[in-house]
Amino acid sequence: MVILGIDPGLANTGWGIVEERRGEVRCRAYGCIETSSGSDLAARLRRIADELTAVVDRYRPQEAAVEGIYFGANVRSAIPTAHARGAALVACSLCGVEVGEYTPMQIKQAVVGTGAADKTQVTYMVRTLLHLDHDPKPDHAADALACAVCHAHLHRTRELSGGAYTQEKGNPYA
Amino acid sequence: MVILGIDPGLANTGWGIVEERRGEVRCRAYGCIETSSGSDLAARLRRIADELTAVVDRYRPQEAAVEGIYFGANVRSAIPTAHARGAALVACSLCGVEVGEYTPMQIKQAVVGTGAADKTQVTYMVRTLLHLDHDPKPDHAADALACAVCHAHLHRTRELSGGAYTQEKGNPYA
Repeated sequence: MVILGIDPGLANTGWGIVEERRGEVRCRAYGCIETSSGSDLAARLRRIADELTAVVDRYRPQEAAVEGIYFGANVRSAIPTAHARGAALVACSLCGVEVGEYTPMQIKQAVVGTGAADKTQVTYMVRTLLHLDHDPKPDHAADALACAVCHAHLHRTRELSGGAYTQEKGNPYA
Repeated sequence: MVILGIDPGLANTGWGIVEERRGEVRCRAYGCIETSSGSDLAARLRRIADELTAVVDRYRPQEAAVEGIYFGANVRSAIPTAHARGAALVACSLCGVEVGEYTPMQIKQAVVGTGAADKTQVTYMVRTLLHLDHDPKPDHAADALACAVCHAHLHRTRELSGGAYTQEKGNPYA
C-alpha cells in the first residue's frame, strides 16, 4: 500500500510517500510545500491544497495520514496550523484519498517507541526504518514521513489481526 | 457588487449573500451548512467546501468576506473553527473569489457601532440594515450576513475615497 504522510503548517507543509509491503516500509519521495507570508491567507491555503493534489496525482497513494495539532499549543500558533490542516484535508477528500489522523504523541510512539522523543530521535528513526542513507530534511518532511510510517504500522497491525484491531481503537482523533 | 459573507464553523458554517449598490445593501440569500459529528473530519470539511462552491456557482459573488477567530478562545474550540475556515478559504480561492478577512470586533463595530455588541444586537441590526421583515436565523447565518455587510461598508468607503482608504489600513488580518 502507498501512503501519503502530511505534517501540515501554514509556512511549511511537509509530505512524504512510503510504500508498505508485507511489513517492509520504503520511502518513495518526500518534500515540503513552502508558502510566503507575503501572500494572502486564501492564496497560501490554495497553494497547499494544489501542491498536495499534485503529489497525489503523481504517486497515487491509497491512503493518507495527517499529523494532529498539539493541544498544549497556544491559540495564535495553533490557528495557522489548523487552517493549513483544513486545506490539506479538503485536498485529500477531493482526491478521494481516505485520511487517518494521528496525534504527535502517537507518531513518536510508533516511530521511536516513546511519546517523549525529540526531533533528532524522530529523524534518526525515520532514516533507519526507511533505510535512507541520509537524514530526510527539512524537519517537516521527516515528520510527514514519520506520520506515514505510523499509519503503515497500523495498517500492518490491522492486516495481521484480520481487521480486529481497528483505527478507531488506536486513534483518539477518529 | 455581490458579496458572500461566511461565518465558519465545523458543525455550522453560516453564509449570506448581499448586494451593495450606491450605498444601499440588500440581502439576496442566506443559509447554514451543517455537518454531522458522526462523519470524519475530512468529509465534513469537504462538505463545507462543496456547499460554499455551490453557493458561489448560484449567486456569483464578486468578493467574499470571512469572519476571523477570536484569539481569546481556547485551543480546543478554536481548532475545529480554524479547520472549517481553512476549508472555506480554499473553496473561495478555487472559485476565484477574492476574500476579505474581518475580526469579530470589526464586524460588530461596522454593524452595531460597538465591538462589545451581543448576538441579539447583531441580529437586530442585520435585520434593520438589510430591510428584512424577520430575524435571519440561525445565528451563524446572521453573523455571515453581518460579515458581508461589514465588507460592503468597507467597499463603499473605498469607492467614496477613490481608493485612498484601503483594506490593509482597516483590516488587521490583511
